[in-house]
Amino acid sequence: MPTEPENAQDPSHPAAAGFGRRGALLAAGAALAAGLGAAADDLARKELTGRHHPTPAAPPAEAAAPFHGPRQAGVTAPQQPATQLLAFDLPQTSAAADRQTLRTVLDALTRTLAAAASDAPSDARLQSLGTTRLTSLVGVGPGLATRLGLDVPAALADLPTFPGDRLDPARSGGDLLLQLCAADRWTLTVVAELVATAAGSAGATPRWSQSGFLPVTTPGTTPRNLFGFKDGTSNPAPAEDEQFVWGPPGAHHDGTVLVYRRIRMDVAGFAGLPADQRERTIGRRQGDGVPLTGTAEHDDPDIYAKNPDGSYVIPANAHVRLTSPRLDGGTRMLRRGYSYDDAPTDRGLLFCAFMRDPAQFTRVQNRLATRDALTPYLQHQASAVAYVLPGCAPGGSLGERLWT
Amino acid sequence: MPTEPENAQDPSHPAAAGFGRRGALLAAGAALAAGLGAAADDLARKELTGRHHPTPAAPPAEAAAPFHGPRQAGVTAPQQPATQLLAFDLPQTSAAADRQTLRTVLDALTRTLAAAASDAPSDARLQSLGTTRLTSLVGVGPGLATRLGLDVPAALADLPTFPGDRLDPARSGGDLLLQLCAADRWTLTVVAELVATAAGSAGATPRWSQSGFLPVTTPGTTPRNLFGFKDGTSNPAPAEDEQFVWGPPGAHHDGTVLVYRRIRMDVAGFAGLPADQRERTIGRRQGDGVPLTGTAEHDDPDIYAKNPDGSYVIPANAHVRLTSPRLDGGTRMLRRGYSYDDAPTDRGLLFCAFMRDPAQFTRVQNRLATRDALTPYLQHQASAVAYVLPGCAPGGSLGERLWT
Ligand code: HEM
Ligand code: HEM
Repeated sequence: MPTEPENAQDPSHPAAAGFGRRGALLAAGAALAAGLGAAADDLARKELTGRHHPTPAAPPAEAAAPFHGPRQAGVTAPQQPATQLLAFDLPQTSAAADRQTLRTVLDALTRTLAAAASDAPSDARLQSLGTTRLTSLVGVGPGLATRLGLDVPAALADLPTFPGDRLDPARSGGDLLLQLCAADRWTLTVVAELVATAAGSAGATPRWSQSGFLPVTTPGTTPRNLFGFKDGTSNPAPAEDEQFVWGPPGAHHDGTVLVYRRIRMDVAGFAGLPADQRERTIGRRQGDGVPLTGTAEHDDPDIYAKNPDGSYVIPANAHVRLTSPRLDGGTRMLRRGYSYDDAPTDRGLLFCAFMRDPAQFTRVQNRLATRDALTPYLQHQASAVAYVLPGCAPGGSLGERLWT
Repeated sequence: MPTEPENAQDPSHPAAAGFGRRGALLAAGAALAAGLGAAADDLARKELTGRHHPTPAAPPAEAAAPFHGPRQAGVTAPQQPATQLLAFDLPQTSAAADRQTLRTVLDALTRTLAAAASDAPSDARLQSLGTTRLTSLVGVGPGLATRLGLDVPAALADLPTFPGDRLDPARSGGDLLLQLCAADRWTLTVVAELVATAAGSAGATPRWSQSGFLPVTTPGTTPRNLFGFKDGTSNPAPAEDEQFVWGPPGAHHDGTVLVYRRIRMDVAGFAGLPADQRERTIGRRQGDGVPLTGTAEHDDPDIYAKNPDGSYVIPANAHVRLTSPRLDGGTRMLRRGYSYDDAPTDRGLLFCAFMRDPAQFTRVQNRLATRDALTPYLQHQASAVAYVLPGCAPGGSLGERLWT
């Protein structure tokens, strides 16, 4: 039976000091940035208050991730505070004509996204923002791949319907799926307009669009979701991405599959539970994200630990038990969720996760839909799956390897 | 006939160096912050890339504006990248009961907003954000003021209908109007939820809600709107606020009137105009915001300057001519607009302006609706007016002086 890693209780080991498998890498950077934050604070107190101008910007704390490269930046670049997902459909005429349209659309998207992510974007509205820090990804949906006989991973397929799903087709699916991420909403609004124009003139039709956001936190801190819990703690370590996120060696080695779910959350209902029941629902503490079986946020939840009375410390219907990699042969997915707020009664989570095979999502979601203690407070309202294309070199185009 | 201020062409004068009436005050702060930006950039290049964590935060560049004080912070505190407007209605039973409800609602809002803006907000979702930097304002609509016989400025009244208005009543008006501003959307989503809960349990009903944003720019830079023009250049200098924004000495001295318009913009249509025609539509250059008659952004547009052929340099139907204070006895309003993006085909400007008397807006908008060269690219879709209440001291409540 699996047990906690040896070092979990050893305070001299970095993993026990609040920086687990992936966090340890960040400790140095976080410490540097904390120093900077203090300096900035100090400066702010001295600075004259500029009332007719927007609040002084974030000095860009990360250089923009380059657009070109073997893999698209939007999968593993650091999560940013703002996201926008955009889906497009292609015409359905003949396979030959539609393949040509897809080529034209992918060319246009490549040019538009590369220009918007460059140090000198041509649209004036993207200038004087320091750098836009745009990161993006473009993927193709399973329907399009089948229709046009594209070379995508065999595993790419639509998800089944899960118990409780209330999916709105007008907000789901699509032939092409894009995710844009940036430091601010402004950048996304402008880039989404440029993308829609480029895709539109190349022959694609907008299908749906969804924006989301994260709290702006300090480096090394996991962002919270609208239930107030840290979300994104347990993810593959960077070294594990090759195994769980990116394709196996071969044609799809630099691609991955994105599973997207728009999940409405009953924030008031969940907040109405007593604090300990909320924590037993998740299996972690609300304040610091520590598993009920651990002492530090990045300790692995021990789903086999028992109380003196023989009951499980992490209850049978707790979210971190039912999603535990230990129930799935150790397989992990890379979750990069965002919150959304489209109306006072329409708020929740944009669940976005990257994995080799969407069947992994299906296995987990089948457990959650019927048994998760969170389920009564959730409603899945939209869904999409896409093969996130490998990246491209300068002068190249996304999707170069789709044509068999 | 009025002429340009003497110093406009003198490059040794700060007003000619790109920092006009209000910008000059900021030059020192901006220079300091630019230095900081460079340091941060440098740091970013050295920093390890924290891929499982959101992008390192903005070090809070301004201390949070305190909630308590003679005037509400949301009127003149520096504009922030994210805003949310919220309107509520009150029940209509008897004047006495409704006055009591209003008192209870204002008490609840005061407590909620003060707590959310404090250094130690109680909601976990507002913690570890550094400071939320929330600024807010609460106002009462003309309808409620009349119904309950509240002590508001005599000038407070609904706006007339203007030619071309396509107002949606479900997104307009309201008994109470709030504006929340913060560094990020996350903070606003959480605070809007707390506000709705507080107002709701005190007896108010949500009417509409609208979110908006600004590009994150460096201090001393005017943000752009979705047409790509700098918006907010010409505003009262801080010293002029006493005359134009805040009430005259007396009961309403620490209040002001907010005029809100949701204006949809035909971004593609406007972008289709030749560049020089776009600039003649506004009366300023698109790149740097300099008036067609000037050399620096903060030069006052000279609406009387003529070309050698006798035509006006700033055309007869240019936006900055028709909105010029020179056509209105020198009266200015404090414009703090935000962009919105509710759908790919529903984008535009949330026009928000503060003034003593909403009749000032009416005079300007009457000119614009019939003659402005921008008008074909705009559609006014929602409207609201509110008396922004004076602030309150710790232990006090907003609206203390409404009761005659
Ligand atoms: C609105 C819906 C959801 C909420 C609020 C939510 C919340 C959370 C929280 C608070 C955690 C613990 C912290 C962490 O490790 O990130 C977590 C873990 C996790 N969740 Fe969710 N989740 C939701 C939906 C889903 C869905 C639909 C799936 C997949 C079908 C999923 C898969 C996972 C996985 C794999 C983990 C990590 C388990 C581990 O390695 O310990 N979650 N979730
Ligand atoms: C979407 C609609 C609008 C757009 C895109 C827009 C854009 C602009 C731009 C680019 C400027 C020049 C830069 C500046 O001084 O800020 C400006 C100035 C101004 N606008 Fe607008 N505006 C809009 C609606 C309105 C409305 C409805 C009013 C009032 C009825 C208004 C009143 C003013 C005023 C008073 C000025 C400053 C004039 C001066 O002092 O030179 N604007 N606007």
